[in-house]
Amino acid sequence: MNKSDSIKLVVAQIELFIGNLEKNKQNILAAVTKARDELKADLILFPELCITGYPPEDLLLRQDFHEAVLKTKLEIVSEVKGIDVIISFPHQTEKGLFNAAALVREGEVVGYYYKQLLPNYSVFDEKRYFTRGTEPLVFELKGIKIGVAICEDIWFSEGPVKQSKDAGAELILSLNASPFCIDKAEIRKKIVQDRAQEVNLPLVYAHNVGAHDELVFDGGSMAVNANGDIAVMGAFFKAELIEVNCLRAPTNEIIIENQALPKPYSDEELIYSAIVQGVRTYVHNSGFTGALLGLSGGIDSAVTLPIAVSALGVENVEAVIMPSRYTAAHSIEDAIYEANKLGVKYHVVSIEEPFECFNNLLAPIYGKSEDPKDVTEQNIQARTRGMILMAMSNRLGKIVLTTGNKSEMAVGYATLYGDMAGGYAPIKDVFKGTVYKLADYINSSAEQIIIPTRVIKRAPSAELAHGQVDQDNLPPYDVLDSILLRYVVFDMGLNQIVADGFDREVVTKIIAMVDKNEYKRRQAAPGVRISAKAFGRDRRFPIISGYKYN
Amino acid sequence: MNKSDSIKLVVAQIELFIGNLEKNKQNILAAVTKARDELKADLILFPELCITGYPPEDLLLRQDFHEAVLKTKLEIVSEVKGIDVIISFPHQTEKGLFNAAALVREGEVVGYYYKQLLPNYSVFDEKRYFTRGTEPLVFELKGIKIGVAICEDIWFSEGPVKQSKDAGAELILSLNASPFCIDKAEIRKKIVQDRAQEVNLPLVYAHNVGAHDELVFDGGSMAVNANGDIAVMGAFFKAELIEVNCLRAPTNEIIIENQALPKPYSDEELIYSAIVQGVRTYVHNSGFTGALLGLSGGIDSAVTLPIAVSALGVENVEAVIMPSRYTAAHSIEDAIYEANKLGVKYHVVSIEEPFECFNNLLAPIYGKSEDPKDVTEQNIQARTRGMILMAMSNRLGKIVLTTGNKSEMAVGYATLYGDMAGGYAPIKDVFKGTVYKLADYINSSAEQIIIPTRVIKRAPSAELAHGQVDQDNLPPYDVLDSILLRYVVFDMGLNQIVADGFDREVVTKIIAMVDKNEYKRRQAAPGVRISAKAFGRDRRFPIISGYKYN
Repeated sequence: MNKSDSIKLVVAQIELFIGNLEKNKQNILAAVTKARDELKADLILFPELCITGYPPEDLLLRQDFHEAVLKTKLEIVSEVKGIDVIISFPHQTEKGLFNAAALVREGEVVGYYYKQLLPNYSVFDEKRYFTRGTEPLVFELKGIKIGVAICEDIWFSEGPVKQSKDAGAELILSLNASPFCIDKAEIRKKIVQDRAQEVNLPLVYAHNVGAHDELVFDGGSMAVNANGDIAVMGAFFKAELIEVNCLRAPTNEIIIENQALPKPYSDEELIYSAIVQGVRTYVHNSGFTGALLGLSGGIDSAVTLPIAVSALGVENVEAVIMPSRYTAAHSIEDAIYEANKLGVKYHVVSIEEPFECFNNLLAPIYGKSEDPKDVTEQNIQARTRGMILMAMSNRLGKIVLTTGNKSEMAVGYATLYGDMAGGYAPIKDVFKGTVYKLADYINSSAEQIIIPTRVIKRAPSAELAHGQVDQDNLPPYDVLDSILLRYVVFDMGLNQIVADGFDREVVTKIIAMVDKNEYKRRQAAPGVRISAKAFGRDRRFPIISGYKYN
Repeated sequence: MNKSDSIKLVVAQIELFIGNLEKNKQNILAAVTKARDELKADLILFPELCITGYPPEDLLLRQDFHEAVLKTKLEIVSEVKGIDVIISFPHQTEKGLFNAAALVREGEVVGYYYKQLLPNYSVFDEKRYFTRGTEPLVFELKGIKIGVAICEDIWFSEGPVKQSKDAGAELILSLNASPFCIDKAEIRKKIVQDRAQEVNLPLVYAHNVGAHDELVFDGGSMAVNANGDIAVMGAFFKAELIEVNCLRAPTNEIIIENQALPKPYSDEELIYSAIVQGVRTYVHNSGFTGALLGLSGGIDSAVTLPIAVSALGVENVEAVIMPSRYTAAHSIEDAIYEANKLGVKYHVVSIEEPFECFNNLLAPIYGKSEDPKDVTEQNIQARTRGMILMAMSNRLGKIVLTTGNKSEMAVGYATLYGDMAGGYAPIKDVFKGTVYKLADYINSSAEQIIIPTRVIKRAPSAELAHGQVDQDNLPPYDVLDSILLRYVVFDMGLNQIVADGFDREVVTKIIAMVDKNEYKRRQAAPGVRISAKAFGRDRRFPIISGYKYN
């Protein structure tokens, strides 16, 4: 071996677009050219399934999609000269469909690696599509032996990374598409460090940015040395080419040169950025430039509005304030204050006329209710607002953003076709307590009061009846969120939750509300996943289940 | 071996309730008692996952669910005396979670079988939960050696059934939960026959009835002899205990005694029955007794109404006729005719007032549209109807049934929060052409005109603008359905469909409409799955995909 071996790698932390093979190809080729011509790199490493985006879902069941992928792959391969390139795509072979990485050198694929550990839990369905690989790929570049792994492959010890090491690898390259959730960046870093330490080899982790429907990809590619120390760390939520210099130490092992590490993000900054990324991608890729939302003077819409502005630009966002007889004067004032502060165009449309119209129309049919819990008139108000927003959306060509949070979605504090009407739900996976934290983050990062203190301090209310507040029927939001976290995210049952110190009667009631309202969530707009278990593909519960705790 | 060996089996074709362990246990024990005491059976065979219902989905991720399943299983086992019982449940063991069958004899489990082939395609996610079994279970009963298989295990040759035969089985018992779709009964029969013939052994197929969210289980349990001949056939869509007599022939093989076979169902009868089963189960298990629907005078609501009546009883169904300035007089007449013919209570509520109210309210904001394709006012009409139905639903405590068909859902001919507003969608998986066949079936099986001929003959129209008919923007429904069948159900691409003789421009347009409207379908009500690929868990496409044909 040559003691002076050294290579320059580039990690292509690019944005991927599901199914847009042409756009992905152009981004890949632009990165290849820049890495070779400007950065003088020896090798460029792309994220998992960079040709198709991740996850392509049931596009993988369509034969013509595979033909198009093959064509795109060949077009990319034929352009590769003067640099090694590792790309990834679904590879249809006689032995099955593989989640593949290909080492491309001088216009030819010189090696394939097939993902060995196929995640089939949480939002992942890889066993629906892929056959599992069994073999390592270890190749040599300027005297250094390099092994390859794809995403899940590095998450378990004694697995494919160990296999690469046993096959002679001195450096591990890992291709990933790892959906964002709270704490994911930390967990991911720990896994990368653990795996490097386990096999005592440096590991380079390539990740994408962007978003796809409900998933956000946060970047944060990295390179760690064999001792687990972070040598290089990419930005979050930003496409970039990251240079990684590897060289052989006098002691013979491969070392990655340290670079200055970026300032870490706070939790709120990560969450806010993830939501902004999700909203921007969904709205733009839906063909909209702008968005509308109902601004109530409550905390949820107050937080959603600056998110929309950050994602789409203030000129593309409009707010609609829709008071009724039950709306407090300060709600309207606070809504107008915030819209003005952000410079967002707003409309004030009273719902009184259509509300009265429906009441008069339907009273002859069903009369007045004696039941104090009857929600008919409350829902008419919420649906009138949904109707107004959707009509404006149709005419103005802007998507409606809904403003419900995860705590409300969990217990069903939302009206189907009312406040749930809209194309995308930015904070649907954000518990109420975290919504307040985001409000503080918005004000503190703006260094001024965007969201009025009164909005943050007042008791949450749907304002659909006189004197109504959410806590009429729910425990305080910190208790509610703690119970929901255990039940929804951690899948704990009644007894387990009670053992954590919660009141049995309260927990029983909350669980029953969550279960009963699955039907509403099935008709909810998609929204950004920021938790380890969001409502959606993540959590596959029966709509109607006979498994009850009460 | 004893040449006079004979056993009486009972197949328990029972209804299963997802997660309702207590109810399932009671049904199981009642069947055990009846099989033993009245039918004098030697063994009773239950369907797949009879303790939990199939599929329990993410309930399987909850530890307390497994504890409850274990408790229920022990309660059942302790009651078993004087008869062999084969039950099935998710079995948590040190080696993983298995989709298990247990042979219970005199208060003890004397053998376990773990499902070996775990379906992870279509609506199935079994690899999300289960570990795969590897061993056969062959046991002896009155001198006959019996092997066990669970559902998917019999769908492939050279698999677990062959393994049972190699282990000495002379008779195969198969436990199933096999969701209904068109042609499924025929396909299933062929598989059972093929497998029996392959191993040259008789096979007894136990299936459940009932429904779960979007899936329907159609019964039709059966027993076939080694030559593939059907010896016994159970009813469709009806819980029953089916006796199966097995005896050893002089030539030593096991023979199942032939019984009279039931009259076969027509395709329309199967589809109609499946939808009725799905609606009844969903509505009742949601806690509703009754339903409401908008009756327009068009074919879709005309077919949905008798379905609702069959499922829930005429006294529990109400129709709402909601004319506008665009509604033809004969639409109202036809709607009233049908409601009267069925004896359904109906209301007539004009939407003119709220429609005008919204127009007047919003005109100052967005003015009059110059765009002839602007759908704003059309959607306001549809949403006003949705609002009326939902308000009546809230006040009257009846679920709203939506009336959209699969062709419309595919191309997006439906208004979110308008005609799509409702709790369950009986015909959402029925192509328009099949809706007409169901109309004919309804009239011919009633031996009178329930659905007026004019409704069947007239060109379909949403009646949201003057002179509007669906065919303004779509090819004739038979062409549309043929393209949709290929694209949506068979996953064929543009070129493949064109090669089948369709116009390229038309196919391109239809595909683009299907792709573009995924967002609407994600917010649609659940409904009965009757096709091999329904919109829902079956078809997991990105909402926004860059893979386009145009």
